[in-house]
Amino acid sequence: MGNCSIKSLRNDDINKRKKKEAFFNQKSKVIWMTGLSSSGKTTIAKNLDKKLQEMGFFTQLFDGDFLRKNLNKDLDYSLEGREENIRRAAEISKMFLNAGIVVISSFISPTKKIRQLAKDIIGSDDFIEVYVNSSFETCESRDKKGIYEKARKGFIKNFTGIDSPYEVPENPDIEINTEEYSIETLVKELSDFIIPKISLCKANK
Amino acid sequence: MGNCSIKSLRNDDINKRKKKEAFFNQKSKVIWMTGLSSSGKTTIAKNLDKKLQEMGFFTQLFDGDFLRKNLNKDLDYSLEGREENIRRAAEISKMFLNAGIVVISSFISPTKKIRQLAKDIIGSDDFIEVYVNSSFETCESRDKKGIYEKARKGFIKNFTGIDSPYEVPENPDIEINTEEYSIETLVKELSDFIIPKISLCKANK
Repeated sequence: MGNCSIKSLRNDDINKRKKKEAFFNQKSKVIWMTGLSSSGKTTIAKNLDKKLQEMGFFTQLFDGDFLRKNLNKDLDYSLEGREENIRRAAEISKMFLNAGIVVISSFISPTKKIRQLAKDIIGSDDFIEVYVNSSFETCESRDKKGIYEKARKGFIKNFTGIDSPYEVPENPDIEINTEEYSIETLVKELSDFIIPKISLCKANK
Repeated sequence: MGNCSIKSLRNDDINKRKKKEAFFNQKSKVIWMTGLSSSGKTTIAKNLDKKLQEMGFFTQLFDGDFLRKNLNKDLDYSLEGREENIRRAAEISKMFLNAGIVVISSFISPTKKIRQLAKDIIGSDDFIEVYVNSSFETCESRDKKGIYEKARKGFIKNFTGIDSPYEVPENPDIEINTEEYSIETLVKELSDFIIPKISLCKANK
């Protein structure tokens, strides 16, 4: 471990986590990406994931489309369904966190209440909120999956930004603007912000 | 990787899993422990977990008591609640499996239908069913948590073995009998069975 200092351990769970973090030579955190559909959350998340892996970090990526195909396939898109979707996403993120893994979780997570729920489950010390900012108009104009069009036509109900709210985060840990900057620039900005927080021992990276 | 041969990769997910398995120098599997309450499932699971970790395997342990405190705290003990409990447990086990991790999942999982559900989600190639066999009478006489007594008095409904069924596995991958043998003997028996299945490269272990 070289010159790394490890804080005293409070209980067995933390003990296990510290051991696993030491195995990976990293501090585990949950990087929580919030933003509108088509804001670029998952694109940024995938690129960040790739970059961190190339640097030797051990990571796990989750997004809404993935979880709704398996664990959360029983849930709808009502506010209650979204809340349960996020509750489970946060619980799983926490399990990977406790396994010493750096987690990147990309979910619209549209309301302050929902994001606070995730933060409460994960723990504020381990939760890094990333607001992926892009105007509603830009997101709709991208509409890669054709879902804004379906929502406009009423085929999708409770669509964030159309007939369901998106509350802009007031104090995200970092905000990145996908309207003004390239993916490459933003991934660099985000990784520069994240890397010091997940590095266990600077000398070893 | 030495002399290890890696089969051709079918898609990105498998590619990622193979890379992660190579990182850990192990093959990920889900070791699924089924048996009555107080049969010794979780005791064996914890000891197996400890032994595998000491040998250098990277593992993750789950049990019903743990999951019902967080992800599954919304579920009851009806057959429907148990099925959903196991469905989610299997989905989470699979996520850790895909992260290259050896998972030990200890759940009563009382019916054939429920265990088949878990196996279907995880995939039969990656699912190792361990039947932790101990007679109902012995389990009740152990009753470490005092729950058999509560169930007898009617304070707990749908208790496996009292007013809810336990269907004995017909073809488990391995059966261990906690009535006749010591924990130490059984953990050795089980680990001798498991280790060849999770070793990526025998020469390196």
